[in-house]
Amino acid sequence: MRMYDLINKKKNGSELTSAEIDFMVCGFTDGIIPDYQMSAMMMAIFFRGMSEKETLALTNAMAKSGAMLDLSAIDGIKVDKHSTGGVGDKTSLALAPLVSACGLKVAKMSGRGLGHTGGTIDKLESFPGFTTEISVDEFVKNVNEIGMAIMGQTNELAPADKRLYALRDVTATVDQMSLIASSIMSKKLAAGADAIVLDVKTGSGAFMKDEKDAVLLAEEMQRIGTNAGRKTVALVTDMDQPLGFAVGNALEVKEAIETLKGNGPEDFVKLCVALGAQMLLVGGLALNQNEAEAKIRAAINDGSALKVMADFVKAQGGDPDFVYQPEKLPAANIITPVFAPESGYIEKIICDEIGHCSLILGGGRVTKDSIIDLSVGIVLSKKIGDPVSKGELLANIHGNDEAKIAAAKARLLGAYKISKSPVKPPVLIKKNIGQEFI
Amino acid sequence: MRMYDLINKKKNGSELTSAEIDFMVCGFTDGIIPDYQMSAMMMAIFFRGMSEKETLALTNAMAKSGAMLDLSAIDGIKVDKHSTGGVGDKTSLALAPLVSACGLKVAKMSGRGLGHTGGTIDKLESFPGFTTEISVDEFVKNVNEIGMAIMGQTNELAPADKRLYALRDVTATVDQMSLIASSIMSKKLAAGADAIVLDVKTGSGAFMKDEKDAVLLAEEMQRIGTNAGRKTVALVTDMDQPLGFAVGNALEVKEAIETLKGNGPEDFVKLCVALGAQMLLVGGLALNQNEAEAKIRAAINDGSALKVMADFVKAQGGDPDFVYQPEKLPAANIITPVFAPESGYIEKIICDEIGHCSLILGGGRVTKDSIIDLSVGIVLSKKIGDPVSKGELLANIHGNDEAKIAAAKARLLGAYKISKSPVKPPVLIKKNIGQEFI
Repeated sequence: MRMYDLINKKKNGSELTSAEIDFMVCGFTDGIIPDYQMSAMMMAIFFRGMSEKETLALTNAMAKSGAMLDLSAIDGIKVDKHSTGGVGDKTSLALAPLVSACGLKVAKMSGRGLGHTGGTIDKLESFPGFTTEISVDEFVKNVNEIGMAIMGQTNELAPADKRLYALRDVTATVDQMSLIASSIMSKKLAAGADAIVLDVKTGSGAFMKDEKDAVLLAEEMQRIGTNAGRKTVALVTDMDQPLGFAVGNALEVKEAIETLKGNGPEDFVKLCVALGAQMLLVGGLALNQNEAEAKIRAAINDGSALKVMADFVKAQGGDPDFVYQPEKLPAANIITPVFAPESGYIEKIICDEIGHCSLILGGGRVTKDSIIDLSVGIVLSKKIGDPVSKGELLANIHGNDEAKIAAAKARLLGAYKISKSPVKPPVLIKKNIGQEFI
Repeated sequence: MRMYDLINKKKNGSELTSAEIDFMVCGFTDGIIPDYQMSAMMMAIFFRGMSEKETLALTNAMAKSGAMLDLSAIDGIKVDKHSTGGVGDKTSLALAPLVSACGLKVAKMSGRGLGHTGGTIDKLESFPGFTTEISVDEFVKNVNEIGMAIMGQTNELAPADKRLYALRDVTATVDQMSLIASSIMSKKLAAGADAIVLDVKTGSGAFMKDEKDAVLLAEEMQRIGTNAGRKTVALVTDMDQPLGFAVGNALEVKEAIETLKGNGPEDFVKLCVALGAQMLLVGGLALNQNEAEAKIRAAINDGSALKVMADFVKAQGGDPDFVYQPEKLPAANIITPVFAPESGYIEKIICDEIGHCSLILGGGRVTKDSIIDLSVGIVLSKKIGDPVSKGELLANIHGNDEAKIAAAKARLLGAYKISKSPVKPPVLIKKNIGQEFI
């Protein structure tokens, strides 16, 4: 087998066999197939696409390119959740304790973020002493005992995907649906869960700006998961404005805690209930949607989810008191209010711009080596559809540097659009994919 | 300017500017733009194509990537000729002396071959002592004094093309018309001629198997040359059977000499006259086709072309006696006749297969470092359309090794197809492109 022939085959529109895709992924991971052949292949795939069979083969080959996590020592059905990400997306922080309190085992691998805010791991490091650098044994033990654990994503997980993504990133071949889907799903398959719930975001703050594309991606990932023998469902959800009110690391942790206490923002609670219900359903812990949602709500109301959160933080080296007293978490020195410049209804909040405010304040990473200021961020007061009077509070900027705050404030004002006539808030849950397979 | 953006632009179907193409070619030649980005670009170009403007810009950028040959010290209009190559294509060997005898200055750069037989330089080395490793000064002096000189193609000539072609060759991006055209034309532009005559081959022994593709390539190259300010014409000619009778290095030199003596094979003479006439026309040495052809024929009949050949061989270190006594040229030890297995008419001679016989005998290069046996080859007796009786001579195999000869014989027999009913010989000159611009 020669890589040249495979490039030529794909270029001419033929379907690659699973053996050919295995050869390609192994050769690339081992450094035998050079970058310049792989990038030509990626560009050919951009133009020719990949069949369902090819996409599954690529996902499997990348999943198997490194160590596959063995979760068999954990009792019960292991359910993983993945979000394509967005601004203010602290869902994992609340969702994992919620479904864990309902009896589901949550063995989650998370990453650090390169973007507006940190990733789940960065956010969790708001708890002093907390670490995700735990051994697989400890990870399994914690899941069995507490019901949940979150581990840092190791380099050994799907190394082929890591290498391939880095190459696609510099050769303009990222934006191909099957390649995006296989990249995400290869890590999920390698992470060992039995079932997967996907949250595909769409809107101005999402990778998939267009809802049609988000649906296609959700469908493609759902198919891959199912074909790989993992029960998989996907929700397509709104990211046309930040999720909840808080954007920023410690601020989002606080909002997640408040949510577990029953004081969460309406949209965020709704999303947690919807995703949590899906997790319980694929995990076999509820018979129908109503029962599943009721269980999630109960886990908020009876405080059991908050207790799981505290136990989880403690087990991974953090101080559980911070869960009950979130005011102890890192806080910024300066809080600057931003007021509405006119009266009307909030028509638009350009989501990426709000994210950029967080980045300006120091809450995100510009390069891999940036140090994140966990305390800074934005807390919105108004969301799309809300009526607002001139001079009323739009948002509070939490910062530690006056110049950065001033820059963030200008940017934040530019992100809001106020209409004279009433505006309907966006639909949060836009589509539900794969439920028929549960 | 970032290469990433250029890849993305081409991928999305936009036209690259000349400045962008310059940036890309310079960066690639300097090693600043990595192979993996360039190969992704080449694949995007395969799918999106290139506009006339882009193709010209690419050709110019590659031509300028190294030293441009300065032929201003040579008096008169310098005309270059290029053939896309085929089996038995010894045209340059006869054509250069022919047009030179008519007064045209021929300053030609040639290469060695990687294929069935050697290139023009290899063939010329059949003359003991002959060298193409001469200085530019000597080259210019010889052209001025004798009328012609042939120099080895230096590495400094269009180095960007050399690097790019090597990359395309391993990433399945060779077969794109504009890239092929710009590769050929960049070397022609760098080689400094004022006018260019192109011979684009089509048929079973050509790179362009399909006549339609050959015409497209000829048109594209003709446009590039014209847009670059060089008077350019192209003929599309037959390569569905070997050109002339001889295939093999010294054998082809002998056939070229016989042609200059007036004893050439009909098709080869016809091609030399056609191409020579075009060269005289673009060189301003004839007013019309009839006059031009008459001059070429006269240069054969009066022996002037043969004299130029002898002077040229002498000037570059060879023994001119070999031109007048070609039997002195390298000859194989064993001549094995191959007879017709049945009676009828020659319907087909699979051209590449005849070339492969020469390769088997040792007449061509398998790798860059192969040593060529200049003496071996095949001399055909029958061509397409010829009647043949069972047992009549089809071809003579000239070899030095019985086992190789046996293998070549089997292959040669398989290349011939004999029909019971009469067959029309192929049309030699299929299309004439750009004459309206002369």
